[in-house]
Amino acid sequence: MAGQVNPDLGKERENASFNTQKLTNFLYGGAEKVRRRRYIESLAFSDPAYSSDEDPTFMSREELYSLGLKRAVTMLQRVKELNIAEEDLGTYRNAALQGFVPGIGLHWVAFTPTIVQQATEEQKKKWLKPAQDVSIVGAYAQTEMGHGTFVRGLETTATYDPSTQEFVINSPTLTSTKWWPGGLGKTANVATVMAQLYTQEKCYGPHNFMVQLRSLEDHQPCPGVTLGDIGPKMEGNGNDNGFARFDHVRIPRENMLMKFARVEPDGTYVQPPSSKLAYSNMVYLRGTFVQGAASTLATAATIAVRYSCVRRQSEMKPGEPEPQILDYQTQQYKLFPQLAAAYAFWFAAQFMTQQHGSITGSMEKGDMSGLAELHALSAGLKSYTTAVMSGGIDVCRMACGGHGYSHASGLPALFGLGASLCTAEGENTVMMLQTARYLVKCFVQSQGGKTLTGTVAYLSAVQPSPVAGNKNMSDLGTLVAAFQHRAARMVRHAAMQMQNEMQKGKARADAWNSCSVLLIKAAEAHVHSFVVRNFAETVQTVEVDESIRAVLMSLCQLYSLHGITEHAGDFLMDGYLTGGDIDAASSHVSAMLARVRPDAVALVDAFDFHDKTLHSVLGRYDGRVYEHLYEWAKKSPLNKSEVHESYYKYLQPFLKSNRAKL
Amino acid sequence: MAGQVNPDLGKERENASFNTQKLTNFLYGGAEKVRRRRYIESLAFSDPAYSSDEDPTFMSREELYSLGLKRAVTMLQRVKELNIAEEDLGTYRNAALQGFVPGIGLHWVAFTPTIVQQATEEQKKKWLKPAQDVSIVGAYAQTEMGHGTFVRGLETTATYDPSTQEFVINSPTLTSTKWWPGGLGKTANVATVMAQLYTQEKCYGPHNFMVQLRSLEDHQPCPGVTLGDIGPKMEGNGNDNGFARFDHVRIPRENMLMKFARVEPDGTYVQPPSSKLAYSNMVYLRGTFVQGAASTLATAATIAVRYSCVRRQSEMKPGEPEPQILDYQTQQYKLFPQLAAAYAFWFAAQFMTQQHGSITGSMEKGDMSGLAELHALSAGLKSYTTAVMSGGIDVCRMACGGHGYSHASGLPALFGLGASLCTAEGENTVMMLQTARYLVKCFVQSQGGKTLTGTVAYLSAVQPSPVAGNKNMSDLGTLVAAFQHRAARMVRHAAMQMQNEMQKGKARADAWNSCSVLLIKAAEAHVHSFVVRNFAETVQTVEVDESIRAVLMSLCQLYSLHGITEHAGDFLMDGYLTGGDIDAASSHVSAMLARVRPDAVALVDAFDFHDKTLHSVLGRYDGRVYEHLYEWAKKSPLNKSEVHESYYKYLQPFLKSNRAKL
Repeated sequence: MAGQVNPDLGKERENASFNTQKLTNFLYGGAEKVRRRRYIESLAFSDPAYSSDEDPTFMSREELYSLGLKRAVTMLQRVKELNIAEEDLGTYRNAALQGFVPGIGLHWVAFTPTIVQQATEEQKKKWLKPAQDVSIVGAYAQTEMGHGTFVRGLETTATYDPSTQEFVINSPTLTSTKWWPGGLGKTANVATVMAQLYTQEKCYGPHNFMVQLRSLEDHQPCPGVTLGDIGPKMEGNGNDNGFARFDHVRIPRENMLMKFARVEPDGTYVQPPSSKLAYSNMVYLRGTFVQGAASTLATAATIAVRYSCVRRQSEMKPGEPEPQILDYQTQQYKLFPQLAAAYAFWFAAQFMTQQHGSITGSMEKGDMSGLAELHALSAGLKSYTTAVMSGGIDVCRMACGGHGYSHASGLPALFGLGASLCTAEGENTVMMLQTARYLVKCFVQSQGGKTLTGTVAYLSAVQPSPVAGNKNMSDLGTLVAAFQHRAARMVRHAAMQMQNEMQKGKARADAWNSCSVLLIKAAEAHVHSFVVRNFAETVQTVEVDESIRAVLMSLCQLYSLHGITEHAGDFLMDGYLTGGDIDAASSHVSAMLARVRPDAVALVDAFDFHDKTLHSVLGRYDGRVYEHLYEWAKKSPLNKSEVHESYYKYLQPFLKSNRAKL
Repeated sequence: MAGQVNPDLGKERENASFNTQKLTNFLYGGAEKVRRRRYIESLAFSDPAYSSDEDPTFMSREELYSLGLKRAVTMLQRVKELNIAEEDLGTYRNAALQGFVPGIGLHWVAFTPTIVQQATEEQKKKWLKPAQDVSIVGAYAQTEMGHGTFVRGLETTATYDPSTQEFVINSPTLTSTKWWPGGLGKTANVATVMAQLYTQEKCYGPHNFMVQLRSLEDHQPCPGVTLGDIGPKMEGNGNDNGFARFDHVRIPRENMLMKFARVEPDGTYVQPPSSKLAYSNMVYLRGTFVQGAASTLATAATIAVRYSCVRRQSEMKPGEPEPQILDYQTQQYKLFPQLAAAYAFWFAAQFMTQQHGSITGSMEKGDMSGLAELHALSAGLKSYTTAVMSGGIDVCRMACGGHGYSHASGLPALFGLGASLCTAEGENTVMMLQTARYLVKCFVQSQGGKTLTGTVAYLSAVQPSPVAGNKNMSDLGTLVAAFQHRAARMVRHAAMQMQNEMQKGKARADAWNSCSVLLIKAAEAHVHSFVVRNFAETVQTVEVDESIRAVLMSLCQLYSLHGITEHAGDFLMDGYLTGGDIDAASSHVSAMLARVRPDAVALVDAFDFHDKTLHSVLGRYDGRVYEHLYEWAKKSPLNKSEVHESYYKYLQPFLKSNRAKL
């Protein structure tokens, strides 16, 4: 990241109140990890095999697909050549692919892990080695045209035929067409196919089956299999999200993944032993979405904050030079809450990783007690953080004005990628209702006298008639208590509303539906209170320089106070906070904006995103925005010729008919 | 729109409580206008010259640009051949271009109107005819790389040289490069260039100059002019938003547009007579943005509401069929407020058109009294409606789940186009601060005893210590009063906060900046209250069937009550509403969702958007979503071959190295 730096940006870095490197070390778990991460990244970033590519922003869909395959294959070769260690794989892949989701990406994200988790030892012998060597390329074929998050509704069937000891995989309707799975259209030659298992004339629900899609010789689709790309999407067009239809395709009985449920040769279905492992995997996966939300929002904040220090515009005081746009309070109010949320989510993701580790340990000892709570939290947290991230990226984009709208900014693509996290792995509303269901259950148990623990303990402790009084709105304990009070009140309100409706004679399902907006809001408030509390605890307990603790404390206050002012109604409803408290919170927000301002660039620098990860002319580390905007534009395909061919084809003949002289 | 209709959608239409056609007539100003509009549209929609094109969703940037030119040129020819009348031009253009913004589009949107408004009669003789005949193609070159909304900061110079009676147009810095103007890169051969006028060694600020960009013979750039495309954008990639640099390009003195300010042959600058016409034009233009926000949001709502009746998912009650997803309260809560906002903005746009007309009349009689108020309202209204629209489209997209993320839905593109309205024609935050400035001025005048009138009259009438009491939250008058109280309180609060800061010694500019978040929120509250009041008045006073009035009344209540629950804090702050009032509002929202549910499809149908305008497989009038999703995907370029060429190039060689057998 050498080279001349824009002086405005240089000054920002000089004036930071803390050591950026030390904050980076804290974020990534220590200096050694940061060093290692940078070293692994440098192997990819300095590799001409990747950097010689044309700029993907100028590519057509087909070119993007090809580039994705090329990069992925190069990456797989390099992983072998460089002997990249297992724990460095993720870092190297991300650096090599540089934001690309290639068609082959789901092979290691979903296909191989499914074999690891759901295959018997016998099955692993057949499938795992080729998957790990990538001598087969797999897709994870679950979602269908007519069904997504509601897995029980899938229509693809796998009917067991004991006479041949085969399953017959079939797509009985148009809507049963597998639709969306990454790599399914053109890339994969094998897939795990989720299908309704029928045996002995009974349906046992969705199970996973290994199905070969294409010939390993010439990549032609196997008999009875129809495959294709589902067409362009908002983003991620390097990936061939695909469709697949199966016309009575026969596979051996052994191709059902049978670690849990089994079908015997005679067709007898054997129930899986009660397994909570699937929940534990889900908790892990959703934790990665929380980390994804954090780093995606952090990326957007990095771009927008740096650019806002380079961009000078308008006139604050007559006759004075144009200010950096980050000096406008309105700009700070757009960007700093996103920055604070990125830190908040980063710490929430760390909590999830740590909890998942500890719960996996307990589960191995047979203790399942914490799983339900963590599962419920993970669903809501995935929903909440991805939703805030998606909206936040758009705020960052608009804060960059017109240039934010150009693909040069990287923000439209980032928004597109971020948006996919809101529907992938469980649609956000459905996820939040899962959390709500758990909260209502806890509330009812608490009413029955049970003492709740962990992240829901506060639900037991809610005060029904709070006494309003002057509160110190800059005290983190006060803020955490306020968020917990709000959540507890809203959970109680939603649960009691539901009880009311049922007492009036509504069926439980109807009562649930007619209260679901309240339930969603209550669950959001719960997750929000968790994020605030976890942020506050992290900042108060970690071992860091006091200068770093001070700035994180400001960010935590900003995150909390901004949350209160933006949801003031929830805190005022029952008088827990007063109008005066809200005014105080609002003043503190202004104070925190001013406090964060001189550290803003250092705070985004600390995320340590390389320019090759940012993909943004506006967010460059060196701040040399305008030169590179011009250089980037010159490479636009429309600029290859001085006069575009369509001029001769359409415009010239038209203008000729009534040629003007000037 | 014939053909078999999805039965679920058919049933929705049968069960509507009002006559859709009559509501359409009301929205478009009468049956005759609707008939005319449909007739004009049909001329384009049935024209094979447009409909034989390939689907733009599959096109590369260059193909999009070419298609845009092709359609535009065809359209211009047809306009002549069919002798389309002036008042039908907009309708025909939109229908012919089908959502495309071609490079040539700014020619009639900005270039020609600038000549009409700013050229002398003499100048019109030279420029207007060729512009109207499109024998020249123009761009409107104002925005620069370094300056957008802040026009006074533009850096391009036009220096008068009396010795040759020429202006020298120059781009002195990199950031002075003209950047973003539509059609500037490859299409236009002339531009109106906004430049700082220097004469007799003095700068007189930005003025407009006619500058030839390219040869009328061979389209090569003129000497001293550097032109190009600025690269791909979030959307609108059929347009060649371009850059231009001028290296001491000389143009005759007569090329300065001199209807207002003039430069005499000797270089004397002659001040324009005080002209408020520019403001009036701005009011008009911003009114078109409000209409744009309304119809764009209405388009998104149309797509999402129809799809939500076709899509069946999940299980509300065990054993029952999967419900239409529009039956989920959470889905209604996402979509119906967008639908209600679309109607609210539609009526707000009608108010602006009507007011602009009446004020133009007054101005011709020398009465400028209403202009400042309308100008302030138009800035805030542009900002508010486009922001809500942009967020609302994303809500609609996500409400369509995974399929909303596909370009088949039309929603990613609609979001991209909608988003551009938030920064175009004045960045939204800057716009809202203009409104705030006017409101603070009014507040101060009101404190000084002046009685305010029109849309700000309520600011005088604010009660400082409201008495809370049980309010009838389903009464529109009560809701309008609540919104006005909220806005008045927030304007007062922001203005007094500013006064406090100044009394503490802050300079006015610093006080303004440190209160600008409060000012923005106050201005938003003002605009919001206007939209609510205008909606309520429209519904209460128009002559329509009672069945139509009833459903519009429900929408108006939903819009108002939803606004109150989403901004509950603003109403609770000073006790104007109580927690009980908010709970009542929240219950009424639920009731209104249920009330709107059976009419939802008819309410979107009434916008009368043709499938060719919707560009959406999900939003099709006939609801045959899944068949057409499959048909659309099959046309994806990646599906042209069964095995993509990149397989042979990258994947096969890689897999060959360690071929597996299955």
